[in-house]
Amino acid sequence: MRIGIDLGGTSAAVGLVDENYNVLYKTSVSTNDCKTEKALTEKLINCVHDLIALSGVSLDAVDSIGIGSPGSIDIENGVVLSAGNLPLFNTPIAKILEDEFHKKVYLDNDANCAAWGEFHAGAAKEYNSAVMITLGTGIGGGIIIEGKLIHGKDNRAGEIGHIVVDIHGKRCACGRIGCWETLASTRALIERVKAEVANVPYSVLGNVVAENNGVVDGKTLFVAMKRGCKVAKSIFADYIELLGVGVLNVIEVLRPDIIIIGGGISKEGDTLVKPLVDYIGETSTIIQTSQLNDNAGIIGAALLYLQ
Amino acid sequence: MRIGIDLGGTSAAVGLVDENYNVLYKTSVSTNDCKTEKALTEKLINCVHDLIALSGVSLDAVDSIGIGSPGSIDIENGVVLSAGNLPLFNTPIAKILEDEFHKKVYLDNDANCAAWGEFHAGAAKEYNSAVMITLGTGIGGGIIIEGKLIHGKDNRAGEIGHIVVDIHGKRCACGRIGCWETLASTRALIERVKAEVANVPYSVLGNVVAENNGVVDGKTLFVAMKRGCKVAKSIFADYIELLGVGVLNVIEVLRPDIIIIGGGISKEGDTLVKPLVDYIGETSTIIQTSQLNDNAGIIGAALLYLQ
Repeated sequence: MRIGIDLGGTSAAVGLVDENYNVLYKTSVSTNDCKTEKALTEKLINCVHDLIALSGVSLDAVDSIGIGSPGSIDIENGVVLSAGNLPLFNTPIAKILEDEFHKKVYLDNDANCAAWGEFHAGAAKEYNSAVMITLGTGIGGGIIIEGKLIHGKDNRAGEIGHIVVDIHGKRCACGRIGCWETLASTRALIERVKAEVANVPYSVLGNVVAENNGVVDGKTLFVAMKRGCKVAKSIFADYIELLGVGVLNVIEVLRPDIIIIGGGISKEGDTLVKPLVDYIGETSTIIQTSQLNDNAGIIGAALLYLQ
Repeated sequence: MRIGIDLGGTSAAVGLVDENYNVLYKTSVSTNDCKTEKALTEKLINCVHDLIALSGVSLDAVDSIGIGSPGSIDIENGVVLSAGNLPLFNTPIAKILEDEFHKKVYLDNDANCAAWGEFHAGAAKEYNSAVMITLGTGIGGGIIIEGKLIHGKDNRAGEIGHIVVDIHGKRCACGRIGCWETLASTRALIERVKAEVANVPYSVLGNVVAENNGVVDGKTLFVAMKRGCKVAKSIFADYIELLGVGVLNVIEVLRPDIIIIGGGISKEGDTLVKPLVDYIGETSTIIQTSQLNDNAGIIGAALLYLQ
């Protein structure tokens, strides 16, 4: 058995994964309340101990631990160089966990772990090459070619959210103009919904937002579409084009066997993928949503030993 | 020794490549006058015989033949499915040459061969991963990761000229809007120069074009820049941004050790690359022009056996 840790800016999920790549037990802890490296790593360690206790499995039965982390990673040395809003800076996280658990600890970035999970146990398990596109605050990418994770120089391959698709577009947080994630991330979609609701408040979409106390999230648009809202359908049609142009870009460069769409919005399934496939048109690359959903990162981290 | 054939829409170059990856002898023939598959393949066969005669080397000393072809390729079976304006349709070109020369014949696409040549004998020989970007009528790409050519599904990886960079831009020959090659190919640059000369005829650039009997080619802009032409410098500054945005896109996706700029315009060397590197700013990916120039395709084809 293996342990996989999916470390995120809000929470960390820790799972026990069996030889058939199933998550037997999992638990999670908040991470956004950890102010120091020590507080965060101790919380992760306790979470692993809790998982072991919960599962009733002996720690001896665990062969290795894998961690998927956001940010900039030194994979070879198991060091998190920086990790967005988490208090990790040049943190030798693999060694810290190895010292505690006396198991080999593997580290990779979160997008790569999600791709690796889908590749071995999810949507891509029948294929040789895959790109996982994770839609969230930004757009992340994990690339697998001929069964190998592609890390690139300084482990920075797969930053597909920063492909420029609109040279006259909006400035991205990265400083450049017109990055794909300024248009097609879930955050960009939410911003568009908010702007349209402000413009056209007396729509079904506006009602959905009002019912939700004014909060717009990744589901809002889809709820309104299910109620037949024309405004929502129009926003969604635009969104599919903006999402599609980047998916096509990834296809042109890498022509993988399969592209897997992940992130919370991917739970919409065919509602999202069918129009996307229609937009993209004829291509030999298959397009599907994540099969493992929230477990992709845990399973991928647990399976890092397979590299 | 190996023979490499660099097949193009206008001409084919055939070279004899030694064990140190040098082109010992080379010859070429026109291809745009071949109306049938038979006429073209016979011309290629005669060209190889001519090369052998020219070199004084025995055919016995040739270990294999490699072909780089434009268009759509079935690498596994050595078949050219289609090749732009060349009369090749489902042509088993490897078998045709094998039957004639009784040597193993390898086939790949032209962009991959150029990348493969630079990887083994040119700008990328010290590196593990490289992307060759060939600027011409369109923009081609050859991708090498960890020493392996990346072919993708249906051998269609590396079509980097069709990354959409301007979602509100011009329609590309491929049918989509705003592909990188509509802005940054040598053809796009030439069109821009023509338009500016029509707009501002009394410029140094206009004089250069007039001296060349109204013909604009890939060198025109650079000749005018050397004479201090402000119009030419302004066009070039725009071009560097349009070229740079696509190079950055390739870096974001693949983060290779090196990007090699090829095609006729790459002979401008530092005049092209220095401002490009300045535009791109800090990155761990090295950017250089082709070292092998016109020989990259021949050498890469000759070395296809190394895959």
